[in-house]
Amino acid sequence: MVDHRTQVDLGHMRRALELAASGPEADPNPRVGAVVLDSRGEVAGEGFHRGAGSPHAEVEALRNAGHRARGGTAYVTLEPCAHEGRTGPCTDALLDAGVARVVFATGDPNPAASGGAARLGAAGVQVDSGLLKAEALAVNRTWAHRIRTGRPFVTWKFAATLDGRSAAEDGTSQWITGEEARNDVHRLRARCGAIIVGTGTALTDDPGLTVRGLDAPLPRPPLRVVIGRTPLPPSANLFSGEAPTRVFPHRDVGRALRQLAEDGIHHALLEGGPTLAASLLANGLVDEVVAYVAPALLGAGRAAVGSLGIHTIGGAVRLHPTSVSLVGEDVRIIAVPNHQKQETH
Amino acid sequence: MVDHRTQVDLGHMRRALELAASGPEADPNPRVGAVVLDSRGEVAGEGFHRGAGSPHAEVEALRNAGHRARGGTAYVTLEPCAHEGRTGPCTDALLDAGVARVVFATGDPNPAASGGAARLGAAGVQVDSGLLKAEALAVNRTWAHRIRTGRPFVTWKFAATLDGRSAAEDGTSQWITGEEARNDVHRLRARCGAIIVGTGTALTDDPGLTVRGLDAPLPRPPLRVVIGRTPLPPSANLFSGEAPTRVFPHRDVGRALRQLAEDGIHHALLEGGPTLAASLLANGLVDEVVAYVAPALLGAGRAAVGSLGIHTIGGAVRLHPTSVSLVGEDVRIIAVPNHQKQETH
Repeated sequence: MVDHRTQVDLGHMRRALELAASGPEADPNPRVGAVVLDSRGEVAGEGFHRGAGSPHAEVEALRNAGHRARGGTAYVTLEPCAHEGRTGPCTDALLDAGVARVVFATGDPNPAASGGAARLGAAGVQVDSGLLKAEALAVNRTWAHRIRTGRPFVTWKFAATLDGRSAAEDGTSQWITGEEARNDVHRLRARCGAIIVGTGTALTDDPGLTVRGLDAPLPRPPLRVVIGRTPLPPSANLFSGEAPTRVFPHRDVGRALRQLAEDGIHHALLEGGPTLAASLLANGLVDEVVAYVAPALLGAGRAAVGSLGIHTIGGAVRLHPTSVSLVGEDVRIIAVPNHQKQETH
Repeated sequence: MVDHRTQVDLGHMRRALELAASGPEADPNPRVGAVVLDSRGEVAGEGFHRGAGSPHAEVEALRNAGHRARGGTAYVTLEPCAHEGRTGPCTDALLDAGVARVVFATGDPNPAASGGAARLGAAGVQVDSGLLKAEALAVNRTWAHRIRTGRPFVTWKFAATLDGRSAAEDGTSQWITGEEARNDVHRLRARCGAIIVGTGTALTDDPGLTVRGLDAPLPRPPLRVVIGRTPLPPSANLFSGEAPTRVFPHRDVGRALRQLAEDGIHHALLEGGPTLAASLLANGLVDEVVAYVAPALLGAGRAAVGSLGIHTIGGAVRLHPTSVSLVGEDVRIIAVPNHQKQETH
């Protein structure tokens, strides 16, 4: 037997999740979507959060619904907040609009914002939660990671040949991978709040670390982060005006990551080089690996990964592949460290 | 409009190809299948070549068809041979049986065996050729390579971590890849006539190079081939009685490959190590690469590929990926060198 109300609820929550996913991924705030029905069950308004400083999803949906929200139902992907942010608590907005029932997918892991469900319930609103919870968690995976750990979710991206070389013997590395893989990296950068390199890479490759070739302009470019003591010339591409840049002139990557998290960055892309990547890996600070493996062989040249202090096969950093695909002629392997895999299950 | 006869022909040729593929892949002879119809178009007999010394596919199919072959049609995946092998020319058998029409998929690239079509035509048999030619060529891809080049088709297999290491710093390498990948290697070995290693690998890893874990027993195990001058102890696993072993005590791999081809081996599996693989790669003697990439990082240890004499990125050996898949937790990448790709198109 199919529970009719559950089927209806599922449909509206799926739509709310779609709306949530259209929000800006790199924004400090979580991505939230909302659908408001009138008392007869007709869709009266939709909304999603367009980023810090914009109205919350519920507020936008209620605004679109107007007086039709009275006696109706609100579907929200995240528990409505109870705290006073820049936009006022959403629980108040839902109560003011006279909504009779609120369905949300996942509780707010942020202690400062939680308590909305209890407040709504106390005011006589029917509250249901947990619908499509896994999907809702996935939409804000990196944001929740920041709340939980106080560090951004770190994706380490590297490109190497099939024999693990990231540059030839003479240091040349343009281009190991093909155009499609390079475009894929730009899409990956666009989803992150920061892009991190070490001073070694900054000096050797002089990367710009900007986002290019997107269909739509980004609300704001990712912060460029350089970690290390070696001074960089002011003419470095990293100091171009296209995006903000921050230098952490010490090698305590843990401290740098905590600082980035405090500044609202929940997803950082680590783009090398081998020494910095090895340091984060050895300290368990890499949450995901995106490897672009070019079907090419060099036989010599710079190794993609520097020493990890591993001497025997039993000590290898083991990963669990979550996605393997061809991007142009290159193979993209996405994998998570096994400790991460256990942590998230 | 659908040509009825063509549809019927296609169906029978597909069946003949299925029969061909059930023959032993590593056998010195090509894999051939045959279907014989009687004069009313009913299937009267089927056959495939079970390996050197067994009857050819046509002969087996004719034997099964008996007198019903008279006035009928024979579908054969390879042009019927005109030479005197151990089993007599198939063209004579077809003529003796009174077959009225012969359809074959691909001509015989072996000059010693070709001429069958002309002989059949001269004797008044209707001959059609080229049906499902690409599929028929694929069934004997490595055999045709040997006929064309005088060398076996060389598949280089290696296993490495995501950062290109085939062993840890202390030399340990068991196990880089998981059980599924190792089983996959046994299936790959079973399809080859020979497995090649250098004396370096033979001394370091003491591999047995036997085929294990198959559902059905092999007609004969692949020849184990060691190339190099360094002497091996008689206690080496390579000298176990489970399979024949041949040592080429010189480093001219080209000469060794030509010798193997003369002995009827058309598919050789190169299992390393880095120096021998680099030597074959640098000389354009690798026809296919099968890489098992373990989602693991070592940061140090033996490189999967030795020096190729490449100094700059423009000189990289570029490959074209033909297959990418997950085998257990490992990524299997099959790729062909770009020169090979051009050659076979």
